[in-house]
Amino acid sequence: MASGRVEPAFCRGSHTMVVPMLMFKQNRDRLCERLRKNSKVPKGAIVVLQGGESFTRHCSDHEPVFRQESYFHWMFGVEESDFYGALEVDTGKAILFPPLLPDEYAVWMGKLLTEEDFRVRYEVDECHFQTKISDVLKAKSPSMLLTLHGLNTDSSKHSREAAFDGISEFTVNNELLHPEIAECRVFKSDLELEVLRYTNRISSEAHKSVMRNVRPGMFEYQLESLFHHYCYFQGGLRNLSYTCICGSGDNGSVLHYGHAGAPNSKQLDNGDMCLLDMGGEYYCYASDITCSYPCNGKFTDKQKGIYNAVLKASRAVMAAIKPGVSWVAMHQLAERVQLEELRSQGLVQGDVDEMMKVNLGAIFMPHGLGHFMGIDTHDVGGYPEGTERIDQPGLRSLRTVRNLDHRMVITIEPGIYFINTLLDQALANPDQARFMCREVVDTYRGFGGVRIEDDIAVTEDGMECLTVVPRTVEEIEELMAEGRRGQQVPLPQETEKMVI
Amino acid sequence: MASGRVEPAFCRGSHTMVVPMLMFKQNRDRLCERLRKNSKVPKGAIVVLQGGESFTRHCSDHEPVFRQESYFHWMFGVEESDFYGALEVDTGKAILFPPLLPDEYAVWMGKLLTEEDFRVRYEVDECHFQTKISDVLKAKSPSMLLTLHGLNTDSSKHSREAAFDGISEFTVNNELLHPEIAECRVFKSDLELEVLRYTNRISSEAHKSVMRNVRPGMFEYQLESLFHHYCYFQGGLRNLSYTCICGSGDNGSVLHYGHAGAPNSKQLDNGDMCLLDMGGEYYCYASDITCSYPCNGKFTDKQKGIYNAVLKASRAVMAAIKPGVSWVAMHQLAERVQLEELRSQGLVQGDVDEMMKVNLGAIFMPHGLGHFMGIDTHDVGGYPEGTERIDQPGLRSLRTVRNLDHRMVITIEPGIYFINTLLDQALANPDQARFMCREVVDTYRGFGGVRIEDDIAVTEDGMECLTVVPRTVEEIEELMAEGRRGQQVPLPQETEKMVI
Repeated sequence: MASGRVEPAFCRGSHTMVVPMLMFKQNRDRLCERLRKNSKVPKGAIVVLQGGESFTRHCSDHEPVFRQESYFHWMFGVEESDFYGALEVDTGKAILFPPLLPDEYAVWMGKLLTEEDFRVRYEVDECHFQTKISDVLKAKSPSMLLTLHGLNTDSSKHSREAAFDGISEFTVNNELLHPEIAECRVFKSDLELEVLRYTNRISSEAHKSVMRNVRPGMFEYQLESLFHHYCYFQGGLRNLSYTCICGSGDNGSVLHYGHAGAPNSKQLDNGDMCLLDMGGEYYCYASDITCSYPCNGKFTDKQKGIYNAVLKASRAVMAAIKPGVSWVAMHQLAERVQLEELRSQGLVQGDVDEMMKVNLGAIFMPHGLGHFMGIDTHDVGGYPEGTERIDQPGLRSLRTVRNLDHRMVITIEPGIYFINTLLDQALANPDQARFMCREVVDTYRGFGGVRIEDDIAVTEDGMECLTVVPRTVEEIEELMAEGRRGQQVPLPQETEKMVI
Repeated sequence: MASGRVEPAFCRGSHTMVVPMLMFKQNRDRLCERLRKNSKVPKGAIVVLQGGESFTRHCSDHEPVFRQESYFHWMFGVEESDFYGALEVDTGKAILFPPLLPDEYAVWMGKLLTEEDFRVRYEVDECHFQTKISDVLKAKSPSMLLTLHGLNTDSSKHSREAAFDGISEFTVNNELLHPEIAECRVFKSDLELEVLRYTNRISSEAHKSVMRNVRPGMFEYQLESLFHHYCYFQGGLRNLSYTCICGSGDNGSVLHYGHAGAPNSKQLDNGDMCLLDMGGEYYCYASDITCSYPCNGKFTDKQKGIYNAVLKASRAVMAAIKPGVSWVAMHQLAERVQLEELRSQGLVQGDVDEMMKVNLGAIFMPHGLGHFMGIDTHDVGGYPEGTERIDQPGLRSLRTVRNLDHRMVITIEPGIYFINTLLDQALANPDQARFMCREVVDTYRGFGGVRIEDDIAVTEDGMECLTVVPRTVEEIEELMAEGRRGQQVPLPQETEKMVI
């Protein structure tokens, strides 16, 4: 077993956070408590989850580093693939079922752990190899097995229900568990908040490291590389929460930039704004942070204007957040502040209330204000039964329409983008065009975009911002200037071009 | 489109290699030539491949960065997911079928490319959106569609055969293509060799960067982080070819160390040997390099002894390689040299020929000597029809038993490991135990292992080593000492432990 681990806890290195297995015990206890209050769940019920499976890429034997399925992680914190886990609802007893590996695997995988090793490592009550799953569960004579089946409203995919040889001999219910466990995941425990603070702190420092080191002439992907290296080397964050979006210049207006078809491959031109949306994860807990600034370290007046409009929206939302506040109202507040600022800068004209009626805000910010965050970047529970998407531009992209409550963790990410498709659409639509100052707006084409994204936790009477990066123009320019006074990251030499 | 790309070629940045689309045209031409020589392939046949699909993790909307399926990459070099491609065997004409995306995707994904954009980008003869695939192919009245179905002998998985609406109206043969295209992939063109030289050069430099920066007290994963950062930042290698194996001390004897259950998380103790098996990929072409050295920069006599035994095996194999040589014989040569060296160092005793008869070599080197390498780390074509695995320890792990030939690229990776399971097995087996000097061998328990892995290309009369890293003890110690004279990578501060 890795010596970096302090038992029973997760830790990547002496300089990284120690996460006690108690966190998962608390999660399981919270779930049991909810299930016991549900009158449809009989006494003697047992939850059964199937963990994520390892797989290889296409037909090759290339095996990506395994990352646990999120519900399973929330319940058990197991790092390895191909587990099952069970939870007795009445007692809170937890049972893990690791795969039984052939002895000869020891040569390739290291010392094989015993049932007792795993039991101690993950601090559960029982551990049996998977070959015994049916017998072990049968011996407990459960009234019902509760399996996980339900819709993820961000992916439109369904969670994968546990299945094993012999399950047909049990009474299985796959409807009761999903809404209850998703609801548990929405509300973060103190320990979960500690982990989210840690991922945010490391990822914030990594953003600052990029700010110090960015220079015109670099390539966007080099910022991704700097970020990931900081997260992993300094904080033990092996995985990033999502693909880095490193848009410079006009690419800042491409909301999902960075994917394989647009792989952060542009060179930074002097004067380019950069929109850097990057976050690391630790022990499967996410962070999701966007910083926007000019790659040369000095905002132009135009850049400062747009940046401050977004910052004002972000800070207005933060000032308003507390339990009971509607997330839809927060989205509209951000839109309103941004439109007011765009008006004062001469990009739009007229009455902001009238602009809101024709959804002008979504021309400049076509995405939602933010989303729950936890083990998934877009965390579950945004649309529980009885809630529905609002079919309007901007609002329809919201990943939740709930009222905020204590212990929710959510991103606040207002933004203003100059997306030609949408600007042209607005200019061609008389209802919207009358508010647009075409000639001024046209001078912003190619500007790209600004997004300011923080991760926050709702507290009893307000909120706590987990993200700690420079946010005002002055703070950013100061840190970037400091970076320019220090030693520069050595840049690669130009390679001789291959001549064909 | 990314401005880093020089059309029609792939390039990640001005400092990274330019790969012309001509490389894929040459690959397709080689395939057509083989197929035209195959009497079972009728005139008018068309090859149809389905590219890799994008997917999200479990039920979430987390989408890993797409990496193309390897056969499709070899034919077309397409970076995006969800394509189809076709190739007219008689004429060599290539046709791509990208997915047709809804207009509104432009907001999220950037400007949508037209059919003509893709045609120019990938330098193919025709490009049609996928909705037209059946009609386009029908208009060509092919005698037969050749689809890809066959076994990958490393993964034991089958390649995924192309399927599309309307394919049932064609005559489809799924047997003829696989052996021919796999055989083409075994032999690398001049352009492919250039790319492999590049990935090797960058990955070699990244290994050297790690050698300079490693210090006792670091954690294994920090070496992984340093390596990846060098590859990506300096060379544009976004993906690594495989999960980094960074085993220190005893972990060096765990052949597949580094996976999620043993995630390179041990702290380096002063005196530990490190076994670092790491390689980056560029435009889907792999590298696969292992360096072994003590983390404190100074070999002990014991470490030097084992290291030099492996190095001698490596160099003996390199000296013997040329077209016509049997890979099985090379494996046996490496085993023999290593056993001779272990005998001279007093770990084993007796006649080496007799040791070979009882497979003693596989106690110290349970894996095969090496494997083909190309677009996959374990590249295809190792066991074409008519060849079979040899069912003996060590030899049964060989990923090919072929005779070497010009333009094959293969790894040479002898190693000596002290794996308790295997040592105990040998000591308990009278046939093997009589050669083992138990008391001496026992002093090596916990040593870990040494592997020296280079990537080589077979030339007309010998071989070219693509890997360029320090290999002698003196070279390694010199580079590590140089690294210690320079500035050290700043290490993370110890984090205050969370108190529960």
